[in-house]
Amino acid sequence: MSLLVVGSVAFDAVETPFGKREKMLGGSATHFSLSAGFFSDVRVVGVVGGDFGAEEYSVFERHGIDTTDLEQIEDGRTFFWQGRYDFDLNTAHTLDTQLNVFADFQPKLSDAAQQSRLVFLGNIQPDLQLEVRARVRGAELVALDTMNYWISTVPDAVWNVVRAVDVVIINDAEARQLAGEPNLIKAARKILAAGPRALVIKRGEYGAALFTSNSYFAIPAYPLESVFDPTGAGDTFAGGLMGYLASQDSLDEATMRRAMIFGSVMASFNVEEFGTERVQRLTHDEINERFSTFKRMTHFEEIPFERAIRATP
Amino acid sequence: MSLLVVGSVAFDAVETPFGKREKMLGGSATHFSLSAGFFSDVRVVGVVGGDFGAEEYSVFERHGIDTTDLEQIEDGRTFFWQGRYDFDLNTAHTLDTQLNVFADFQPKLSDAAQQSRLVFLGNIQPDLQLEVRARVRGAELVALDTMNYWISTVPDAVWNVVRAVDVVIINDAEARQLAGEPNLIKAARKILAAGPRALVIKRGEYGAALFTSNSYFAIPAYPLESVFDPTGAGDTFAGGLMGYLASQDSLDEATMRRAMIFGSVMASFNVEEFGTERVQRLTHDEINERFSTFKRMTHFEEIPFERAIRATP
Repeated sequence: MSLLVVGSVAFDAVETPFGKREKMLGGSATHFSLSAGFFSDVRVVGVVGGDFGAEEYSVFERHGIDTTDLEQIEDGRTFFWQGRYDFDLNTAHTLDTQLNVFADFQPKLSDAAQQSRLVFLGNIQPDLQLEVRARVRGAELVALDTMNYWISTVPDAVWNVVRAVDVVIINDAEARQLAGEPNLIKAARKILAAGPRALVIKRGEYGAALFTSNSYFAIPAYPLESVFDPTGAGDTFAGGLMGYLASQDSLDEATMRRAMIFGSVMASFNVEEFGTERVQRLTHDEINERFSTFKRMTHFEEIPFERAIRATP
Repeated sequence: MSLLVVGSVAFDAVETPFGKREKMLGGSATHFSLSAGFFSDVRVVGVVGGDFGAEEYSVFERHGIDTTDLEQIEDGRTFFWQGRYDFDLNTAHTLDTQLNVFADFQPKLSDAAQQSRLVFLGNIQPDLQLEVRARVRGAELVALDTMNYWISTVPDAVWNVVRAVDVVIINDAEARQLAGEPNLIKAARKILAAGPRALVIKRGEYGAALFTSNSYFAIPAYPLESVFDPTGAGDTFAGGLMGYLASQDSLDEATMRRAMIFGSVMASFNVEEFGTERVQRLTHDEINERFSTFKRMTHFEEIPFERAIRATP
């Protein structure tokens, strides 16, 4: 298989100013794989409970996602998260978290999973991320996500896994916190010095940036008149990015840049409706159309200023 | 003359975590014209006091800025602003404001000033902006800046002048406040519906965006490892943008986009040192070099995703 994701598969209850859902498919590995599945074959490593039924599995199957490594604990319940967004849709207020079977999650990788070419370590305990990383030694590219909770509580463990991966995909506040450095450019330099060859910064409505040791690439977000539910936007972004990479032979800078755009495109669709609803019925034409829009909205001609054409008084 | 600016000319006292200046040249029209002067002839309309001396005038003269319309009131003092920035350099804390001669500022436009092709109405009382606008009827393009204070206290006056100009150049918080709309895209639509043919949104470290009725253009900020003094960044941006426009025969969309880049380039230099210090000794080569960097840091190839090249399992 070309792309492996390890992360949470969950049920979410979400309330926004625009409506609510009592129980819908969620979790980092879910959002990631549904997004990545548009570009590449994907295999999910995670754990679900007995309440995870045929309907949920069918969503993964319809998108060609391999759930062979999705462990099911029949007498347990699936991870449940309940949250609310107020008019500031940038901030999620957690109302309830029931880890359930996810509390004792120990990622199990089949032989096929261990042969993955690309691997995404979703936001789970960093020591577990490091264990998985050690079991995919042959991978061409391993990326990770993490969050403020792990950076605050087990920073050394986060740094250990940051050192062991090729790409770090986090938001700007997390990058600043991890590096202990308010300036993002300096923070990026510090993180890259630890080992990763690329750092991807997610900035929500302000877009995303890609740092490598010798280059910088930044893009705006797709302009949305209404953000409906931001849950899973970051994982959907990572899914588009990694899925696109997995579809390409070369993982060079130009490919990474296009992957950033496809990630942004997927995230922009994700937030237009609840949970995975919009992404589930996306088409490749819609994806490519929005990719083209990104080109139109960032293009300018490189014509230096010539004093010769300075206007006369 | 091709470009006219109306605004404040001031002395600033600024303290940042990196140092301080007791008294330096400042004000919106100063930052604007020093920036615009790299691209075009500029004429300044403003008022200064008897304490504004040969040294200050020489700064304008060295940059080819026409100060004929800069009124001097010998028995008054020049507008003085004192501010402090803490480690969050996005927020200025005002310690002292002495309006002095600026309190009774009534812009006086010479015949030459009234013939200007392009006009920038710096952040002054909106009724005064409207008066100036009425006196430059032949101008090809009139732009304005404003601020939260005027939007809060005299919103109708702000809307009156917004309706009367071609381009509005404000930051994202101001656009949201003016439109009474938290979503920036909707806010932009509302402002454009009032009349301007373009809305330029300044986003500080997140870059800038250009809205027209049928297009959207967004750029990141130049990545700076150290922001030294953000005072005047917005006016320096506007100066680069308007100065570049004034140097061009056509004010079409492609020109506007390049003007956005030149504005961003100029702002990025401005914040590297105190006040106008960095901009005062800029060169055209440095400007064009950073313009090229903007191209490199935003470029990607427009290659749609092809399912045909999807990797096989």
